[in-house]
Amino acid sequence: MQCELCAEQLAGTVFENEELRVILVDDAKFPGFCRVIWRAHVKEMSDLSAAQRGRFMDVVFAVESVQKTVLCPDKINLASLGNVVPHLHWHVIPRYVDDAFFPQPIWGQEQRDASLVTAQRAALLPEFTLALQSALKQI
Amino acid sequence: MQCELCAEQLAGTVFENEELRVILVDDAKFPGFCRVIWRAHVKEMSDLSAAQRGRFMDVVFAVESVQKTVLCPDKINLASLGNVVPHLHWHVIPRYVDDAFFPQPIWGQEQRDASLVTAQRAALLPEFTLALQSALKQI
Repeated sequence: MQCELCAEQLAGTVFENEELRVILVDDAKFPGFCRVIWRAHVKEMSDLSAAQRGRFMDVVFAVESVQKTVLCPDKINLASLGNVVPHLHWHVIPRYVDDAFFPQPIWGQEQRDASLVTAQRAALLPEFTLALQSALKQI
Repeated sequence: MQCELCAEQLAGTVFENEELRVILVDDAKFPGFCRVIWRAHVKEMSDLSAAQRGRFMDVVFAVESVQKTVLCPDKINLASLGNVVPHLHWHVIPRYVDDAFFPQPIWGQEQRDASLVTAQRAALLPEFTLALQSALKQI
């Protein structure tokens, strides 16, 4: 089976370099949700060299930092799971106390309808995307 | 409210230094599940300095590496969520295709009764704990 994260083009790509790609996930419930995806088909962080891990995490933390500054979430969730797609990728998710799942992880039980407040937050996405691209170019 | 991760003593502590603690989580469904907990009450990874983040992640990845070597999981899940307890901590979770929740995250829907195979895996915990302590002392 073809690995979907090995694809030449990934929808929502906002930044890429030789090692990794950053995508803005199209998820109406979590505006600003990003994935940082290692380009090579590697399964675990400990399969990378220390230098590769360091560069990978620098980008993950840069995404977090821009989310914090531009989107002002109540918490940021970071996760590298890969049970379904065992190709290294990090989820970087801005969370709000009134979002659809809080305080559950986004993989837990939905808690409430948050569509109105979430749509308002999505208005920040153009500004967020520009800030993200600007920050990542400087790494 | 007192933060539970600020406590002087944490159950299951297998390693600690001035900055962080590593605990073996008492979770019958996920033998080998560890948490790496920053000692100071800090909310986000981007609130730490780059050097602090680097040392924190070095320990997270060392835990992953020992899990991989001793426990031979099918996948390892890493997550820093903190929606309930906003005090930086990483979950490092060995996952198996026949565990109770796979391929769901451990916060998702339970998939099956895996008590028998999980109990067998728990027999490796003494060996795992020794290997983990040995690896972490060398960081």
